[in-house]
Amino acid sequence: MTALAEPERLLEDPVFALHRGGKLRTTPATPVTGPADLALAYTPGVARVCQAIAEEPALVHDYTWVSNVVAVVSDGTAVLGLGDIGPAAAMPVMEGKSLLFKQFGGVDSVPVCLDCTSVEAIVETVVRLAPSFGGINLEDISAPRCFEIEARLKELLDIPVFHDDQHGTAIVVLAALTNAARVTGRTLGDLRAVVAGAGASGIAVTEMLLNAGIGEIAVSDSRGLLHPGRDGMNPYKASLAGRTNAAGRTGSTEAALAGADVFIGLSGATIGEGAVASMAADSIVFALSNPTPEIHPAVARRHAAVVATGRSDFPNQINNVLAFPGVFRGALDVRARGITENMKVAAATALAGVVGPELSPDHVIPGAFDGRVVTAVSEAVRRQARLDGVARV
Amino acid sequence: MTALAEPERLLEDPVFALHRGGKLRTTPATPVTGPADLALAYTPGVARVCQAIAEEPALVHDYTWVSNVVAVVSDGTAVLGLGDIGPAAAMPVMEGKSLLFKQFGGVDSVPVCLDCTSVEAIVETVVRLAPSFGGINLEDISAPRCFEIEARLKELLDIPVFHDDQHGTAIVVLAALTNAARVTGRTLGDLRAVVAGAGASGIAVTEMLLNAGIGEIAVSDSRGLLHPGRDGMNPYKASLAGRTNAAGRTGSTEAALAGADVFIGLSGATIGEGAVASMAADSIVFALSNPTPEIHPAVARRHAAVVATGRSDFPNQINNVLAFPGVFRGALDVRARGITENMKVAAATALAGVVGPELSPDHVIPGAFDGRVVTAVSEAVRRQARLDGVARV
Repeated sequence: MTALAEPERLLEDPVFALHRGGKLRTTPATPVTGPADLALAYTPGVARVCQAIAEEPALVHDYTWVSNVVAVVSDGTAVLGLGDIGPAAAMPVMEGKSLLFKQFGGVDSVPVCLDCTSVEAIVETVVRLAPSFGGINLEDISAPRCFEIEARLKELLDIPVFHDDQHGTAIVVLAALTNAARVTGRTLGDLRAVVAGAGASGIAVTEMLLNAGIGEIAVSDSRGLLHPGRDGMNPYKASLAGRTNAAGRTGSTEAALAGADVFIGLSGATIGEGAVASMAADSIVFALSNPTPEIHPAVARRHAAVVATGRSDFPNQINNVLAFPGVFRGALDVRARGITENMKVAAATALAGVVGPELSPDHVIPGAFDGRVVTAVSEAVRRQARLDGVARV
Repeated sequence: MTALAEPERLLEDPVFALHRGGKLRTTPATPVTGPADLALAYTPGVARVCQAIAEEPALVHDYTWVSNVVAVVSDGTAVLGLGDIGPAAAMPVMEGKSLLFKQFGGVDSVPVCLDCTSVEAIVETVVRLAPSFGGINLEDISAPRCFEIEARLKELLDIPVFHDDQHGTAIVVLAALTNAARVTGRTLGDLRAVVAGAGASGIAVTEMLLNAGIGEIAVSDSRGLLHPGRDGMNPYKASLAGRTNAAGRTGSTEAALAGADVFIGLSGATIGEGAVASMAADSIVFALSNPTPEIHPAVARRHAAVVATGRSDFPNQINNVLAFPGVFRGALDVRARGITENMKVAAATALAGVVGPELSPDHVIPGAFDGRVVTAVSEAVRRQARLDGVARV
């Protein structure tokens, strides 16, 4: 496809038509319509604001947009299902994320696609950019680099740093699984789960479910289940192998599903109907790969009590937009120094709680446009930030 | 001053009231009001746009905001008259610049205040950020680092890189001086000028006036006139010393003004009334330091035919907002690979040309809110970019 060869086809395509000229704009918070405005917003007036901040750094939160603006940072190495397509081609996703930040959370946001991929370079660059932002949302950075990048940035910066592919997914999965357990008469502690995928989201989901007290959990990658005896695992997989799979199973994801209560697919692989049929009664299947779920939800639903996907055209959409706008809204509101594990759990609990009497097997998680979500999640995050002592205000 | 001690005073101050919460916002170009919108603007639709750009990189200009967004980059080392106040305290100026980019030029813009000051680190960081932007506006970076940073970025990047303190000022000064010469019956070639200040703006103004064919020009810094025999000059001053001050004058700025036609103050220093009185008949005084001009314009006007300042409360305001919005508007419109010397001269010529029959000693330059300016400047920049072969479209 080239710009010159097929312009008309692209113009007629609704996706490309919507993207024409990009999806984001900057706008003045206050219009400058004459010399008097200019003298306040720019020289000479602005110099007094600069001087005040130079003397009292905390004033930057009050008199600039910094405390409400998040950088959506990517190197374009793990974009949706497309993989390593580089920073320019990743821009539509990051712009989309910025758009959702604003639309759902009232959070200003700037897409920052970086032309570098080493851990060192990305960390260094984000640290240099940090004075311009109230928070850093890492996005579509491939594993295992994403873990080290996030860990180092959390250590170096005193603003929220959040890798959405990890923690946004984990929050929404925990919320949905909490409600799926509830609707089938169980608790998290009753469940034996298999997570397919040991990339960013698979590892983060597993860590969060471990923290939340899941009964038993095992993780697989393309080579099968993680277990301590396996060789060739990166340090993140090796760490998980030592803390999961208590039964010491080996072999394929599908084999591990026999008798399991929960399948969580974050792998891009597929599982057969027979594997789902082999699960325990009232099983829960989260087939979250996009755009193609690990198993078609209608097929899974023949055997499972609750089925969720990442798609909007089936029930129970596990969508990160349920988490990140409220998480950052809450964290920015209290000028949090960071996002703690407790804050993520609080976000998940609040998100699950939004589903009230309407809880059913086909409604274990709120819809993306449920206006109660950001209110509930941000309130829980603010409260937990204060409890955890990371709130500045 | 502290945030806690004086909140009420700040809230009542119109400058601080206007700055509360910052001056800039991001907004969706297209609202996402339901699942159908979300499926176009985000997953799954967005993946097709990413893939198209990965296959045909030029499509990034059509289907993202990149080609209309400029980074306003500063390290906070030379902010207005305040000096090195650091990146956080510089933010109000950079936000203001972004606001003016949008309001005057329709250019989206993001303030980027960097927590690093070495030439190497700034260049490296901006190169890494470059895929996210259609142009780079450098701002308030101290001399002489600003020269090397700009030169290296121009070499490394194929998008417009423009240090506004240098070239924005130079464009507006050249435009105003062209008209000041005209209104006093002369041409640039007839004029002998003295430029006080050999920082970013002083050097850029001098270079531009040399290119435009000024009759004679000399430059001074805090130690007096630059001349080839002087020691301790940085390479930029040394270069200018070899190409200016044809008469080989030494000594103070004020002494050099005797018999001169033009004074251009970009120094923050002061000059006495006697020095202005000693200038040639029909002299031209641009006392551009802000907020305090080198000499009060009313005093200068007793002796000079044309007086300009950087302030809005006196005639002939030399304001960069007359240049940078139109320069970037034009450069972005043709997706220019860079901004050539000719494009800057074309911008100055177009800006001077906006003043038509209303040309008078107190009106040698358009007002900041003259709607004709951005149209004329951007058109001249587009035309010249095409002539210079740097336009992509």
